[in-house]
Amino acid sequence: MKIIVDAFGGDNAPAEVLKGCQLAVSELDGVEIILTGDKDVIEKSAKEHQVSLDHMEICHASQVMDIHIEPTALLKDFSDSSMAVGCRLLAEKKGDAFVSAGSTGALVVGATFLVKRIKGIKRVTIGSVIPCKGGCYLLTDAGANADCRPEMLLQFAVMGSIYMQKFFGLPSPRVGLVNIGAEETKGTQLQLDAYRLLKDAPVHFTGNIEPRDIPLGGCDVAVADGFTGNVILKLTEGMGSFISKEVKSLFTGGPVSMLSALGVRKQLMSFKKQMDYKEYGGAPLLGAAGLVIKAHGSSDAKAFKNAIRQAVQCSKQNVVSEMTKAIANLRAQS
Amino acid sequence: MKIIVDAFGGDNAPAEVLKGCQLAVSELDGVEIILTGDKDVIEKSAKEHQVSLDHMEICHASQVMDIHIEPTALLKDFSDSSMAVGCRLLAEKKGDAFVSAGSTGALVVGATFLVKRIKGIKRVTIGSVIPCKGGCYLLTDAGANADCRPEMLLQFAVMGSIYMQKFFGLPSPRVGLVNIGAEETKGTQLQLDAYRLLKDAPVHFTGNIEPRDIPLGGCDVAVADGFTGNVILKLTEGMGSFISKEVKSLFTGGPVSMLSALGVRKQLMSFKKQMDYKEYGGAPLLGAAGLVIKAHGSSDAKAFKNAIRQAVQCSKQNVVSEMTKAIANLRAQS
Repeated sequence: MKIIVDAFGGDNAPAEVLKGCQLAVSELDGVEIILTGDKDVIEKSAKEHQVSLDHMEICHASQVMDIHIEPTALLKDFSDSSMAVGCRLLAEKKGDAFVSAGSTGALVVGATFLVKRIKGIKRVTIGSVIPCKGGCYLLTDAGANADCRPEMLLQFAVMGSIYMQKFFGLPSPRVGLVNIGAEETKGTQLQLDAYRLLKDAPVHFTGNIEPRDIPLGGCDVAVADGFTGNVILKLTEGMGSFISKEVKSLFTGGPVSMLSALGVRKQLMSFKKQMDYKEYGGAPLLGAAGLVIKAHGSSDAKAFKNAIRQAVQCSKQNVVSEMTKAIANLRAQS
Repeated sequence: MKIIVDAFGGDNAPAEVLKGCQLAVSELDGVEIILTGDKDVIEKSAKEHQVSLDHMEICHASQVMDIHIEPTALLKDFSDSSMAVGCRLLAEKKGDAFVSAGSTGALVVGATFLVKRIKGIKRVTIGSVIPCKGGCYLLTDAGANADCRPEMLLQFAVMGSIYMQKFFGLPSPRVGLVNIGAEETKGTQLQLDAYRLLKDAPVHFTGNIEPRDIPLGGCDVAVADGFTGNVILKLTEGMGSFISKEVKSLFTGGPVSMLSALGVRKQLMSFKKQMDYKEYGGAPLLGAAGLVIKAHGSSDAKAFKNAIRQAVQCSKQNVVSEMTKAIANLRAQS
């Protein structure tokens, strides 16, 4: 299996990307890597960090798509960037999946216009896997499309459900529509219309989910427009950061509280691990005709390895072809 | 000063309401209460719980507006409910403010159609005061109006800013527009248009606020449509509940962790207090021509006392007349 990896995506590129690829190659059976990016810089960085490039090939790309650049520039001014080249390689089926920790907006553009969409898909959506009570849930759309129509939410639900089935092995993921009340009559016109579509959709639709119940594990797939989804994603991060700082400060008040911290050290570490996004891999871009995984911008070697493992697993489970089939069925029914 | 109190609002009515009123009368100087609700039941409950009704009068109302009843029923089928009677007493200036822990939706209806709106106000909005790093912030609209127009967000910002000035004594509250990016070009059409209005508004507008920065104390007033605001309110509650349960479980794993909990007991209690909504009083309904405070549905006596204190303080600070002036100025300018 060949995974294409953007060597210049993320805050720690290329060194941590290369280390992550090396870990993946050594730990995962039969995985080969195609690195995209400046050949000289990659080879120099590999040498400097003593990373072996065994089972990796480099596909040269002269540019880097900085996160501050307007996403659509990927198609024109940055068409020889490591990200654009990676997308094109995937479209040409030179690899089984593409992993990048670069600009989310640009990757959505690349997935949409270079990898291209699954037939019938209106918009590529970002699925963020977020820790919650008892595990994690998939939030989609997590920010790719601020404005959404009801049919888009239906497609997000179908694809999100397949992702949770195939990647996390849930037999019947509970799909919830993010809304401000449990009743069918709640929300704006978007939620009212989406509710009607979801009721008849080929997913295990459990009705509206109120944001209060999301962190408590109330659903496996939380469906929302990209504005609401991004608010949820960022507020979850902000609350996590706020509360973890407060909890940390509980233990630094003096010798007694510092001793107390030692007493629950193991539990604290395990909780921290549970809340760590990196444990759940990157965010899948759902709706593209090839498998695209967005790794966190701050990914370290381990996070890159996990994202590659995620790509391998999704590829083995035929996630994209399952979605293609489901979307075709959806079109046939409507 | 006379505060009208709905004796039949909330999960713990009327007993906790009455106890809260007694606390308010004994602790706050010169405060008198008008209780609305069934006279017999109130007197019986007061006797049963040994609550003195000194400095309180009862204004009889034969009905109770249950939270499951369609809010607009307040105007017709439940026009003799304790809530409707309270709203009318306020409109008739029989009291300085009205406090209720009943149905939020019904109270918005009552504030809008019985108390009536400040001249020029398009919609009454709920302002929720939410704990964050270093204190609290006002979220408005917290759920009264799922669909909003940009001019409504402008009015929410102006009123929210006055509330934080007058009630919390902030000289220049930082007003942020809830959005999914810091740049002026982010969000849906609503945020784009609201941004333009807020730039020229008579508030200390600090630009877009990303939800990640809200719990970290990034603004004093977070302005949003009621759908987004309600998502923020409920997700904040859910995250708080989720993480506090997880933290609690850290300390119950065995004798060592239980001893550790003792070591940080004081800090834990202080953190819990900081995160307790009840400490910040009820939610003001902004835009009504009289002062209406929505107390939490689960309010106990202390929470009712705090909501009454809040009503007294807002009344002394002329919050409603300040808002009336500001909205008139806004109209004159546009």
